[in-house]
Amino acid sequence: MAEYQHIRVERADDVVRVTMDRAQKRNSLSADHLAELLAAFRSIAATDAAGVVLAGEGPVFSAGHDFADVAARDLEGVRDLLTLCTDLMRTIESVPQVVIARVHGLATAAGCQLVASCDLAVASEDAGFALPGGKAGWFCHTPAVPVARAVGRKRLMELALTGDAIDARTAEQWGLVNRVVPADELDEAVDDLMRRATRGSRASKALGKQTLYAQLDRPEADAYAIALEVMAAASQTPAAKESMASFLEKRSAEWAD
Amino acid sequence: MAEYQHIRVERADDVVRVTMDRAQKRNSLSADHLAELLAAFRSIAATDAAGVVLAGEGPVFSAGHDFADVAARDLEGVRDLLTLCTDLMRTIESVPQVVIARVHGLATAAGCQLVASCDLAVASEDAGFALPGGKAGWFCHTPAVPVARAVGRKRLMELALTGDAIDARTAEQWGLVNRVVPADELDEAVDDLMRRATRGSRASKALGKQTLYAQLDRPEADAYAIALEVMAAASQTPAAKESMASFLEKRSAEWAD
Amino acid sequence: MAEYQHIRVERADDVVRVTMDRAQKRNSLSADHLAELLAAFRSIAATDAAGVVLAGEGPVFSAGHDFADVAARDLEGVRDLLTLCTDLMRTIESVPQVVIARVHGLATAAGCQLVASCDLAVASEDAGFALPGGKAGWFCHTPAVPVARAVGRKRLMELALTGDAIDARTAEQWGLVNRVVPADELDEAVDDLMRRATRGSRASKALGKQTLYAQLDRPEADAYAIALEVMAAASQTPAAKESMASFLEKRSAEWAD
Repeated sequence: MAEYQHIRVERADDVVRVTMDRAQKRNSLSADHLAELLAAFRSIAATDAAGVVLAGEGPVFSAGHDFADVAARDLEGVRDLLTLCTDLMRTIESVPQVVIARVHGLATAAGCQLVASCDLAVASEDAGFALPGGKAGWFCHTPAVPVARAVGRKRLMELALTGDAIDARTAEQWGLVNRVVPADELDEAVDDLMRRATRGSRASKALGKQTLYAQLDRPEADAYAIALEVMAAASQTPAAKESMASFLEKRSAEWAD
Repeated sequence: MAEYQHIRVERADDVVRVTMDRAQKRNSLSADHLAELLAAFRSIAATDAAGVVLAGEGPVFSAGHDFADVAARDLEGVRDLLTLCTDLMRTIESVPQVVIARVHGLATAAGCQLVASCDLAVASEDAGFALPGGKAGWFCHTPAVPVARAVGRKRLMELALTGDAIDARTAEQWGLVNRVVPADELDEAVDDLMRRATRGSRASKALGKQTLYAQLDRPEADAYAIALEVMAAASQTPAAKESMASFLEKRSAEWAD
Repeated sequence: MAEYQHIRVERADDVVRVTMDRAQKRNSLSADHLAELLAAFRSIAATDAAGVVLAGEGPVFSAGHDFADVAARDLEGVRDLLTLCTDLMRTIESVPQVVIARVHGLATAAGCQLVASCDLAVASEDAGFALPGGKAGWFCHTPAVPVARAVGRKRLMELALTGDAIDARTAEQWGLVNRVVPADELDEAVDDLMRRATRGSRASKALGKQTLYAQLDRPEADAYAIALEVMAAASQTPAAKESMASFLEKRSAEWAD
């Protein structure tokens, strides 16, 4: 793995943990920090890792954009920054690995967007989620994109317009996170969900994840047009053949990929 | 009604019950089984029935595709099978009748897709719902299409990536089913919901259901463009005229259709 | 403010209250009533008000369309009426102010659509919500558009096909309203939510709200394309500059607009 200044990237067995390591800056997403996260996800995508855990060091998960890095930029400069940020969010959705956000403390603005952009999310009971631009002067336009797709419309409006944080239990009820556990059980809960989410053929799951993001948000006929063609083609892969053969032969499956 | 090998089709008053009757195969959806279900729904669509209950015989609702029927197929063969399956799912959405899934035991893969594709669903407390392709070698690409449109994004990801079953109460909280009741109250709950969902003019309700599926998943302006034109035209039907006249005359309405 | 026959428009500080004042007609939405509501929202949009509360006088919030006004219309006449109604709903979404529905009693048909079309909604415990066209002869085609976008698909189908009312707590669980409180705390809860939803720069929030409605319901890539450009441009506004400067200088922000 490359040398990073702002993040730590550690692999244990099949799972890579990416830790935002700017605790003194509340893991705010400067351009350099975003670039490292993007490089790390792109690098991991090319490996045989099965999953990625995205975590944060220090008191919070991430405070969102680093205003010290934004304030001096002109329109083109901010556009470049937001393009980089959006590339990161969409790369998380497109990598073949299962990505789980491990959330403690606050996840605000682009930090909340990170949680919404990970495939799955586990939060500790002390976690909070906010789109604070709504009570200030720079609205959370892009963070609202994936958050809107996780929670309902009225709840998105409440988050975006009030800027107030919701607690972890509310985030679970609204569908923004999958699990809420006491802080001292957070890693165990992440590990359990990761283990369950990375079983089976990785090649099959990678195609599955990527096709899900391709079909979501589309009229159902369009979604079926995508999913049907992919599923038909996927039926001819070694993984699908092994899946069906092992079932019919009443034996455990073994995946080549 | 036609003669069927894999299903039973029985009409009582205004409601047709379609029962998947391959208990020994866990109501798995072979091509022949799918073709009979499709033929049955197309046949019922042409009748004056008000509703359809889709149920399963034996220990589970439906185990999804029949791997014995899939394993030997080449890409074109699987594509034909999935096209047949998708035609069934979309036909359920397009028939003029209200369709309620009566779910007991497990509804997995395309069986879970059937539940998501019915207009309404009532489950017994022992029911479970899963997209198990996620933990094997052939991902549940097409089942995820209607399931994604019933539950939120993070919940879809959990179902699709882990392959684990959720229980009936979780399915109710996530919006995949409308009601959960003890097993011995299942038929009564289905009957009650059917009675309430089939009141009023059938012609009006059929157009309503079909227009709902046409406007869902579209940008709101497109959805309004569809719904407004249909609703304006519908205002001139005998059912709408009777609805308004009976209201203004403070009498019960009587529907010619 | 203009003279109105069917509504009252009162401003207190930064918040305008629009009250439907046809209690004897259960605040049903005749063409004249709709036209006044539309004129009021357009008029308020041009002011510096921060928020709008939409409320109803009398026993219910709104009973939906006024059949006495619909029954005699031909297709073109109904089309004009529904176009007016849809203009009102979409205008509520497009005005720069935060709009909160204050719901007591029943909100039915286009009355329920009003609740779904307001940015936020607070209901008293006695409130109920219904799309009753489903059990009569004129289906609630257009009301179902914003309701479908607030609640899940199966829940929309239940509301639309049965025509039965859900209670306030169910509406909260389904995401149709943001808060449910005892009737005697309704105004206090509306005021609290309005205060929290109208903090910060109004120019920033107006652009934020309008961009949210533009990006919702679109494939994520399209939504990001919209949100990214708006957010980059917004970074150069006085409000965004002040937001970042005040944060970096650890002082309270002051908004010129």
